[in-house]
Order: sequence, then structure tokens, then C-alpha cells
Amino acid sequence: MPLRNLSIIGATGAVGSEVLSILEQYSPLKYSIRLFASERSKGKAIVFNGNPLEIEATLPSVVAQCDAAILSAGSSTSKLLVPTLLERGCLVIDNSSAYRMSDTAALVVPEVNGYRISDRQKLYSVPNCTAILLTMVLKPIHSRWPIRRVIVSTYQSASGGGAKLMEELKSQTADALSGKEVGPSATGEPYAFNLFSHNTPLNDEGWNEEELKVVAETKKLLDAPDLLVNATCVRVPVLRAHSESVTIEFASVRPSEEELRSSLKEAPGIIVADDRANNKFPTPLKASGKDEVWVGRIRHDPTHPLGTSLFLCGDQLRKGAALTAVQILEAYNQLSG
Amino acid sequence: MPLRNLSIIGATGAVGSEVLSILEQYSPLKYSIRLFASERSKGKAIVFNGNPLEIEATLPSVVAQCDAAILSAGSSTSKLLVPTLLERGCLVIDNSSAYRMSDTAALVVPEVNGYRISDRQKLYSVPNCTAILLTMVLKPIHSRWPIRRVIVSTYQSASGGGAKLMEELKSQTADALSGKEVGPSATGEPYAFNLFSHNTPLNDEGWNEEELKVVAETKKLLDAPDLLVNATCVRVPVLRAHSESVTIEFASVRPSEEELRSSLKEAPGIIVADDRANNKFPTPLKASGKDEVWVGRIRHDPTHPLGTSLFLCGDQLRKGAALTAVQILEAYNQLSG
Repeated sequence: MPLRNLSIIGATGAVGSEVLSILEQYSPLKYSIRLFASERSKGKAIVFNGNPLEIEATLPSVVAQCDAAILSAGSSTSKLLVPTLLERGCLVIDNSSAYRMSDTAALVVPEVNGYRISDRQKLYSVPNCTAILLTMVLKPIHSRWPIRRVIVSTYQSASGGGAKLMEELKSQTADALSGKEVGPSATGEPYAFNLFSHNTPLNDEGWNEEELKVVAETKKLLDAPDLLVNATCVRVPVLRAHSESVTIEFASVRPSEEELRSSLKEAPGIIVADDRANNKFPTPLKASGKDEVWVGRIRHDPTHPLGTSLFLCGDQLRKGAALTAVQILEAYNQLSG
Repeated sequence: MPLRNLSIIGATGAVGSEVLSILEQYSPLKYSIRLFASERSKGKAIVFNGNPLEIEATLPSVVAQCDAAILSAGSSTSKLLVPTLLERGCLVIDNSSAYRMSDTAALVVPEVNGYRISDRQKLYSVPNCTAILLTMVLKPIHSRWPIRRVIVSTYQSASGGGAKLMEELKSQTADALSGKEVGPSATGEPYAFNLFSHNTPLNDEGWNEEELKVVAETKKLLDAPDLLVNATCVRVPVLRAHSESVTIEFASVRPSEEELRSSLKEAPGIIVADDRANNKFPTPLKASGKDEVWVGRIRHDPTHPLGTSLFLCGDQLRKGAALTAVQILEAYNQLSG
């Protein structure tokens, strides 16, 4: 029986709002939705498909009165709620990093490893946004021409830090334009017309948590434990789409640029924008609000006989989080329907 | 005899203004300066060290009434003026790309290959800004531990497109913040809260002119014709400092992170900002208005036994152009003084 009673937890955040907007766009009548957020949003309402839905406080026993839950309220909230949700038999789709590397959860991007979705599997983790966008592009390549090594430098948007950081980017930028002094943002660095190494703690080898997630989750999603991944994660003053400059080394065969383009064109959820004559390539603005991951600048790397470079952009809130969560829900429902 | 009569050509542009500001800061009384710009600035004045200097129209015979000239008015103006300047025996320091790959010019960053400065050499090209910042960091490394391959993804500021593009970034951003529709900037893409592949034409292999400059000039500056360089040049919504995410492969020996840090600390014109505990690394804002190139995020690349990754930032207008030009002038003057 398809699941119909859906709890949306973290409904007022950047990802939670996007989950609602995607459900409204694609399945406005399919689910009976209850919204949950923190105590201070309790009693407020969000209009969904023309009707106001009241926001409830996030109490485990109340949240779990559902068939399925999408959680977008951070790791600690997920760790608090997921055990109860699973006990009550709910399908759980978690946007936080809490269970991503756990064996009990399936880390899934439907286009990349949708085979992990099954009616016996109740807990799903939506991967890190940067890893989702990267594997969306690598998967159709890697499955035909195995990849040995990936070097990626990212250009990550404010939305990865939530609605608050997006607002802070806008307000700091307005201040800078009016000549005011701009102090550190919540990330520790001024954000107006500035960029900085991702604001997550670093390990002893000098890699920040975001980079470690990208490396570990890319390998897990592609089911390629020996894949070599070097990630440098940088936050840029862009609102809601991430970009990635990627250099690949193939294991033994380098496809032609044309072979890569046509493989990517055939792949689900990908737009190839690779117009050298008019200098038109993916940009975060083109990808913003869109479901697809954009890829271009596909070219042989002249510094390695098996190397290829490319550039990709994708909406961090949609494909990088909310859309992937809703796709998992829909795919599960199709199986159990 | 030291050269004292200095023509500044392109005096109203972003780089020309920075040349004046550096001279004012470091050598306010050393030179007798004449300013040249386009016809429409003729008769206006720029205040230098408290005195108004009138702007003259850029006529070859008038411009050449000097001992030395710093040109920052683009390639076509340089091609027009340089032959006359050289005929009259002037020292020529050219910020454009016109002569960078020519055998008649010395392509020089004083800290990198200052040995190319000699009193017999009258024409100097200031390299591409991205190549300057990159070689400032690579040189002290490469001279002790030879490098075989460099993979660089850039985060280039508006100033590389001149004062006009900096203004356009600000005005488009103000429009976006007030909810107005933002169309393409002079670069072909909207610039507010957006980034894009560098807006220079691409060759048949898919590399844009900026990337080809970075590759060719890096090899020339390091006198390393066999060095392998893969550059992806991206423009980001930052005002005046470039950033670069760099992965190096050494030829045979990989130094420790600590060896790299101490070599870079000893190198002229470099600030090492590599504070993992407090997540404090180079940012374009820290580098803006500063003479030094900032480097950090120095770490072993776990995907290659001879690999190291790092991140650098430098003021595009200062070390990336104007400061390097003034340093060449000063170094030449010391030789001939």
C-alpha cells in the first residue's frame, strides 16, 4: 500500500521549504502532510496547494504518527527522532548526515544507486549535496569507462548553510554596497563579495568535514571503495546552486569528448551545456530552481593521457537535497504500491 | 642613471589607478609622472601625492617623451605605442598580453625570475594575473622540489575585467537585492550572485584564452617547458582578489607539509595562513589591498603518492598587475642606478 501520511520535519528551513515546493509542484494531492518545526514556529502556518497547514512542535511521538517522514532539521534532531520513527514502522528519509555512513541506512541518489531502494529498507539517507551533484555526473561515465581518480574543487552556495546564511549573504552584501564595514558571517569570515574554505572543522590531515563527506559518500554512492577522490570545498557568494570543477583520470580507457557528451545527454537528470562557440556553459544561476544537474566544459586533460576535465552546476536545495528526498519517497511508493 | 620621467598609460583604468596608488605609497617623490588615457579623459586631473596631475591624450610621440613607461591600456594600445617607445630608448613595462610570449620581451615577476631584468633588456611584460599569483607560490617550492604537474581551478575576481566590470558587479548585485531582473553583464552572463567559465574565446580543444595564458606563462616564468599545467578559469562575484585551488604532483620527492610551509614563509612576498585549528585560511578579502600572495590549506593529496594540494589568494590589481610593474621599474632602476 502506498504511503500517504507524510511528516515533514524542519518544514521552515531552506530544505524543508523546498520539499514542500516540490511536492506542491509534482504531487499536490498525493499526501496528507503534517508539518513540524521548532517550538518557536509552532502554531504558524504554511500555505500548501492553497491551504494553510499548521506547524506543530517536533515531539517524537507526534512526529511518528505517519507512514513516512522527511527530516531536514540537522543531525541532532535526526538522531533524536529516527529511532522512534523506525520503531513505529515509518519510512524515514533523512537529509542530515546522521546515518549516511551507517550500515542501517541506505545512502541513495535514485539515478545513481536506485537499486538500493527496497520495501525491506526503511531508513534512507540523502547524501551530501556536493556528492549528489558529483555522482549524478560521474555515474553514467564511470559505469561505461571506469574512473580511477577524481580531483574536485567546489564553488558552494550559501544555501548549504541554510536559509539563515542565504539571508546573511544578502544583508552583508547590501551593507558592503552601502559602504558599511562587514564583519564575520556565521561562517567565521565576511561573506559579501568574498569566498572561503568550507567552514567545517578540519581533521589532523588538513581536510574539512565537508571534503571528507564528499570523498566518502562519492565512493559509497558509486560502490567504488577504491576510487581516489581529492576534494577542496570552498564557499562562494552565490545563493542556491553549487558548482564543481572536476578532473577525472580513467582507469584504462579515456572516452572521446563526444562519447562523454552523448552518454551524459542520455543519462537521467542531466543537462549538457557545452557550447564552446558561444562560451555558454553551466552556471549556478542557470541551475537554480531546476531539477537537473548541468554539465559542460568537457575536454581532454592535456596533462594526463587518461585525463578529462569538466564543470558542473546543480541546485543545492533541489537535486542536492529536497528533490532527491522526494524521489526516494516516490520510488519507494512505486515499489510498495 | 636612474630613470625619472615616467609615463603612465591607461592612468584612469583599474590597473593604472593602482600603479599610481603604489607609487604614491612607496615612491611619492621619485618620479616625474605624466598621465595618459583616452581622448575622453583628456584635461581631467588625478591627484597624486597632493598635487593634481593633468591627463593627456595618448599620442605616441607625446607618450614617448619619457625615460620609462608603464602601459595598462590593453593589447591594441600597447601594440600601437611600444615600437615608438622602444625606438626612443624608453624602458617599457607592459601590463597587456601583447608581448608576453614574444622573444623580444622579458616576461617577469621579480620574485620568480628577476634574473631576467637587465639594463640591456628594455621591454618587459607583466604576466597574466593568475599566472603571477600561481608562480609566486610554485617558484619557492619548484626550485627545491621539482614539480611535474599542476591542476588549478581558479576563482577570479571582477577586477580582471577592469574598473567597468567591478562597477557592473556592484550595480547588478544592487539590482538583484532590490528584486530587479538581472540580465547578462559585459561578460555574457549575469554576474550578481553568479559565477561562470572565464569569458574569453575557446580554442578547438575547449580551452579558453585565459587558461591558455595561465598554462603558457606559468611554464615560461618557471623556465619549465615540460611542466604539465591544467587550468580551469572561473570568474566569481568577488571584487579584486583572485583565488586558486591547486593540486601539485612532484617529479620525484614530496616534501612534508611543514617543509612546504617553512619554504613558503621564507619566500619573498608570501604570507602563509594555514590555521587548521581555527579554520583560518587565505580569502580574497584578506588579500585585497595587500602586496603579498596568501597561501594555506597545504596538505598531502591522499590520491597520489607525490601529490600536495593548497589554496592561494592574491590581489589581482596589486601583485597581479600594478605592483609587479612597479617592482620591475624599481629593480631596473637599481641595476642602472
